Amino acid sequence: MQPVSFYEPVRERLEKVNSSLAEMAEQKHPFLAKLLDHTFSTPGKNIRPAITLLASNFHRHDERLTEKMAIGVELLHIASLIHDDTVDGAALRRGKLTISSLWGPKGAVLVGDYIFAASATLVCDTGNIRVIRRFAETIMELASGELQEMAETYNPEQSMEGYLERIYNKTASLFTTAAESGAILSGAPEACSQALRSYGHNLGMAFQVVDDILDFDGTEEEIGKPIGSDLTNGVVTLPTLIAMKHKACSEVVKRALESPNNSDLMCEAINLIQDDRVLEESYNFASRYCEKALDNLAELPESHSRDSLEELVSHVKVRRS
Amino acid sequence: MQPVSFYEPVRERLEKVNSSLAEMAEQKHPFLAKLLDHTFSTPGKNIRPAITLLASNFHRHDERLTEKMAIGVELLHIASLIHDDTVDGAALRRGKLTISSLWGPKGAVLVGDYIFAASATLVCDTGNIRVIRRFAETIMELASGELQEMAETYNPEQSMEGYLERIYNKTASLFTTAAESGAILSGAPEACSQALRSYGHNLGMAFQVVDDILDFDGTEEEIGKPIGSDLTNGVVTLPTLIAMKHKACSEVVKRALESPNNSDLMCEAINLIQDDRVLEESYNFASRYCEKALDNLAELPESHSRDSLEELVSHVKVRRS
Repeated sequence: MQPVSFYEPVRERLEKVNSSLAEMAEQKHPFLAKLLDHTFSTPGKNIRPAITLLASNFHRHDERLTEKMAIGVELLHIASLIHDDTVDGAALRRGKLTISSLWGPKGAVLVGDYIFAASATLVCDTGNIRVIRRFAETIMELASGELQEMAETYNPEQSMEGYLERIYNKTASLFTTAAESGAILSGAPEACSQALRSYGHNLGMAFQVVDDILDFDGTEEEIGKPIGSDLTNGVVTLPTLIAMKHKACSEVVKRALESPNNSDLMCEAINLIQDDRVLEESYNFASRYCEKALDNLAELPESHSRDSLEELVSHVKVRRS
Repeated sequence: MQPVSFYEPVRERLEKVNSSLAEMAEQKHPFLAKLLDHTFSTPGKNIRPAITLLASNFHRHDERLTEKMAIGVELLHIASLIHDDTVDGAALRRGKLTISSLWGPKGAVLVGDYIFAASATLVCDTGNIRVIRRFAETIMELASGELQEMAETYNPEQSMEGYLERIYNKTASLFTTAAESGAILSGAPEACSQALRSYGHNLGMAFQVVDDILDFDGTEEEIGKPIGSDLTNGVVTLPTLIAMKHKACSEVVKRALESPNNSDLMCEAINLIQDDRVLEESYNFASRYCEKALDNLAELPESHSRDSLEELVSHVKVRRS
């Protein structure tokens, strides 16, 4: 777990989340145990379960319920990463070989299914049908976001509207559910749940926009993949859409997407998108979601948890990896 | 839908299930719509949703709930077939090209995830936490059954106990859930739900055992794949376990599993397993589960639905495909 201050109010509870994950690997069947142990032995950044726990902290409640939810949220994230890595043929995740590169796509698809289902059983333990249904819908949205991205690959004619819907589905949906479920399960009044739900939505949108910017603005070391990978793989994101508002750039990007193996052309397109003004406009776009997230928090009473959720907004804005 | 008499008491309701599936393909996103339309355009045999509906017929209840459940049960079955076909690289399903052969493994894994999640949202609509949790556990059991099978591939040292656990997970678990959930959602008393739960369990075990026998006893036309495919792919099933009780046969099977590319040796092993006594003992094994399923039904009041569930047992015993 990262030693960052915004986890402070829920540090101990997040440790419980990670030990519960590790315990899940204690299985009767050695093969399943091995796959789960590999999966859980390198904890992630825990951003999503931290949001659930922080969002639950505004009201006294049975903390076991929100811990189950936080584990479910992290498991869902992990399962979706396993399937993403499998279908994208990724060799590494968090610096370690992926399940699919170690045990092949069959093991990876099946263990992903297992973890998706395990996440759902944890959420069932909350006993709250509204939260359980919202969670199942989130899995549908995640999958449909990835399918939309797949369908639009190498298509230069994309709308901002389509992009925003896609990043909501693939990223912001789970942030929304993480925050809203924490609030609902803590017994928060509806207005508070709605504010936290909107916070999760806006934070998640900012998170994915920054992710898409870092693909052009980061270093290979920071983002763990070659610069411009999204475009090279035919995925059109915000910086590309902004750059394409300029006719000359639009022509180059279109030609690059038509001939993705022409590396000179692809480099030219990436260079044009890396233009300072394009990146600045992209960061401003993310900042507007961050501002909205802060406005959502302003509706909540002051507390350490609210401070932490605010810090999380700043972290998302300036993060480099 | 097959024109078989045991569907009669729930024929109209099963038609509703199939039209609901077809309606699910009406999606805003053309790519998702296309994949779902392809998936639902050839209805399956509907055995699992029929079990749910028949099991619900012993008590008057809100039929919309059990129809949602039946759709969820069929969707779960469909999602698991899509992932199975993807990880096994199967080209055909129900005589049509599979999603993965038409749109690649990425589309197939993601649409499978989408359908798994869609099945869970339908089950959430029943509002019954016990049923919802059992449903999520069933997805875990399905995945872990497939993982167990994968881990044991080409291993001749397998126990009957391990085989039975594996076929419970990969097949009988969903039959159990299909029957039990129909009973629970109809408001049946606990004894009736337990009888139907056991019925589903025993029918599902018989169903998979017969499936495993047909791999040796069917014709290529009936089972849609070459005879002995399980063994050729390293999967040890009941007929193989029974045949291996004879030392001479055990030696041949072990050598065949050690050199799966030696087709002469594999043919010799398959021939030995096709021995009449081996197949008879295997069918007797299935019959014992069928008898138990009939005993479970005897605990229920006489009705058309009970007759249908009895017929279903006979169908499973004599089915050839």
